[in-house]
Amino acid sequence: MSIFKPVSENKAKGKVKKVFDDIKKTRNIKKIPNFWRAIANNPETLERTWNNLKQIMKKGALDPVTKELIYVAVSITNSCEYCIRSHTAAAKKKGASDQMVKEMIDVVGIANQNNKLVESYQVEVDKIYK
Amino acid sequence: MSIFKPVSENKAKGKVKKVFDDIKKTRNIKKIPNFWRAIANNPETLERTWNNLKQIMKKGALDPVTKELIYVAVSITNSCEYCIRSHTAAAKKKGASDQMVKEMIDVVGIANQNNKLVESYQVEVDKIYK
Amino acid sequence: MSIFKPVSENKAKGKVKKVFDDIKKTRNIKKIPNFWRAIANNPETLERTWNNLKQIMKKGALDPVTKELIYVAVSITNSCEYCIRSHTAAAKKKGASDQMVKEMIDVVGIANQNNKLVESYQVEVDKIYK
Amino acid sequence: MSIFKPVSENKAKGKVKKVFDDIKKTRNIKKIPNFWRAIANNPETLERTWNNLKQIMKKGALDPVTKELIYVAVSITNSCEYCIRSHTAAAKKKGASDQMVKEMIDVVGIANQNNKLVESYQVEVDKIYK
Amino acid sequence: MSIFKPVSENKAKGKVKKVFDDIKKTRNIKKIPNFWRAIANNPETLERTWNNLKQIMKKGALDPVTKELIYVAVSITNSCEYCIRSHTAAAKKKGASDQMVKEMIDVVGIANQNNKLVESYQVEVDKIYK
Amino acid sequence: MSIFKPVSENKAKGKVKKVFDDIKKTRNIKKIPNFWRAIANNPETLERTWNNLKQIMKKGALDPVTKELIYVAVSITNSCEYCIRSHTAAAKKKGASDQMVKEMIDVVGIANQNNKLVESYQVEVDKIYK
Repeated sequence: MSIFKPVSENKAKGKVKKVFDDIKKTRNIKKIPNFWRAIANNPETLERTWNNLKQIMKKGALDPVTKELIYVAVSITNSCEYCIRSHTAAAKKKGASDQMVKEMIDVVGIANQNNKLVESYQVEVDKIYK
Repeated sequence: MSIFKPVSENKAKGKVKKVFDDIKKTRNIKKIPNFWRAIANNPETLERTWNNLKQIMKKGALDPVTKELIYVAVSITNSCEYCIRSHTAAAKKKGASDQMVKEMIDVVGIANQNNKLVESYQVEVDKIYK
Repeated sequence: MSIFKPVSENKAKGKVKKVFDDIKKTRNIKKIPNFWRAIANNPETLERTWNNLKQIMKKGALDPVTKELIYVAVSITNSCEYCIRSHTAAAKKKGASDQMVKEMIDVVGIANQNNKLVESYQVEVDKIYK
Repeated sequence: MSIFKPVSENKAKGKVKKVFDDIKKTRNIKKIPNFWRAIANNPETLERTWNNLKQIMKKGALDPVTKELIYVAVSITNSCEYCIRSHTAAAKKKGASDQMVKEMIDVVGIANQNNKLVESYQVEVDKIYK
Repeated sequence: MSIFKPVSENKAKGKVKKVFDDIKKTRNIKKIPNFWRAIANNPETLERTWNNLKQIMKKGALDPVTKELIYVAVSITNSCEYCIRSHTAAAKKKGASDQMVKEMIDVVGIANQNNKLVESYQVEVDKIYK
Repeated sequence: MSIFKPVSENKAKGKVKKVFDDIKKTRNIKKIPNFWRAIANNPETLERTWNNLKQIMKKGALDPVTKELIYVAVSITNSCEYCIRSHTAAAKKKGASDQMVKEMIDVVGIANQNNKLVESYQVEVDKIYK
């Protein structure tokens, strides 16, 4: 259960309805995922978050699949189950293979390990990296 | 300063010297970065970490640039300055453009924000993602 | 299931019973929440944690509602579901409106995002803030 | 040093100049803090981040001082030095007393401790909180 | 459910079967825990992770019980339920008493609190610790 | 620089002086470390934190060296430099060898890595651990 009851699609109106429609059209889906229904409790948050995400995740110097894999890598590091599951699904939908997901996970694992080795040995930044 | 004094290259011998030589050859560099000199205090850790990293970061279904960007994304999320600096440098050396780095940062930003929105609203996983 | 079986109220005695009674009286509740029953496995931990919490969360320069909202903000950042749920309930009981909770969540979201932007660009502290 | 060189005010133009001017006017300051100069390397990021922050931190059901204190609480939990310093300064400028800051810190401390006690005992959510 | 379907023991072959057999023999167990079955989706990850873990967790200057308690302490700090449960079980199997586990938890609690007090007051490192 | 100016020993009085004296006596040191001088800005926080720490870190089922190593393990995971340095020093003073510290670091590294592997594969808790 959410802290706030998710907004149901057929009760959406005004700003919320507009964003819900844009989500369904942009993503070519028929059902609004729970995340958007949850934050729709605050229409301003819904609109801002959706616009930000659309702007950031669009194709640029990085392709959408790479962006989704980076998103999942962050979500694993933060232990956010919903985010891991939904963005892994998104990555696969956009073309990520199972092997790509597995290799991303390996990088996340070693990065988390080495980040802590760096902290524990209190490694000084090399001049070449400054 | 490190908790343990970094091992200097000209004092390296045995397992440590062997790994140091492999690092310089594999990366085509002349000076061992502080990270490797720090963990060389424990030769087993040095050898294991280097072998793991080589295996994981090599070209696979994901190209080395993408792997480095994912590594940096995790390091930003963990606030590891050394790791951010050294692996951003590695990403650029392997071909990442400034624009690619900037877009990666934007994804890291929104992922960290949305991870917390998901936690705060305690969003349930949609059936479609299970 | 907890790692240790929660202590049931009717089996509480000595130090544990004393603290349980104080919790019920101070909070005007009839049932000890699971958190207190869990840590009652270590009576010293129970007593110390309860005394600390009472001292810290009492009205001071900050009112109790603000303190609870700050508590929830930390719990969201740490992804602690129990803590988010129980302290959101506490905040509401002490007078927080739904709108206050929603605005707190928005601040938590942007703070988590901007924290990472700061890390990624390795922003130097302005002299004015030192 | 930042990963990217901070944009200097007198070289700002177009979108960047517009946002810089708005920051100075809105905050009644004469010098753009390093954070904004850093992310100005990506004008879209600068504009989006500034607009989001303005919308979120404005007076609402929560007053601006409380919002800044919540912002600092998150930044402490994430160990972001720049964020702690700059938003503590902002909180004081908007009217937070030293005592309010100290009490916020105490709440952050106990929340971080109790979050971990909850995790360690794997406390189940009470029915009353669901 | 896992992102990838756990590999069942009777379908294991090659590298996976070899590692599964070694896990069962080394730990004197009859059933492969879900963690190993999950990462067996990537045989290279399975082999590397198992070899690393065996090397690190073996008796050295620290005894295996202490190592398991340190492992759990990290897992609590990272809020990893599976890791807390499985390594608490491992610690007990290797000889940790309930009282040892409870004292470890208390240290984890105060360390997390004081870590944040240090961050909030931005405490400078004493010369004696450098 | 700290957010609040550290309290100097010769200006300490009342509750602060009493705690400072106890710290020096208990630890057999002549100079109060910066952490205690920082939180002395809030005498109640100083007293509570010192009393908690004394109670928790004393010899019990776990010896003081093990407790300090656990404390450092948490501090590495949280990337708290001051905490890593001061408690590594404390561990050594109480008898930890360099080898013990190095092995603790290795456990912290692999635990952080495997914690993330568990999250990424969304591993279900085995019945045996519930």
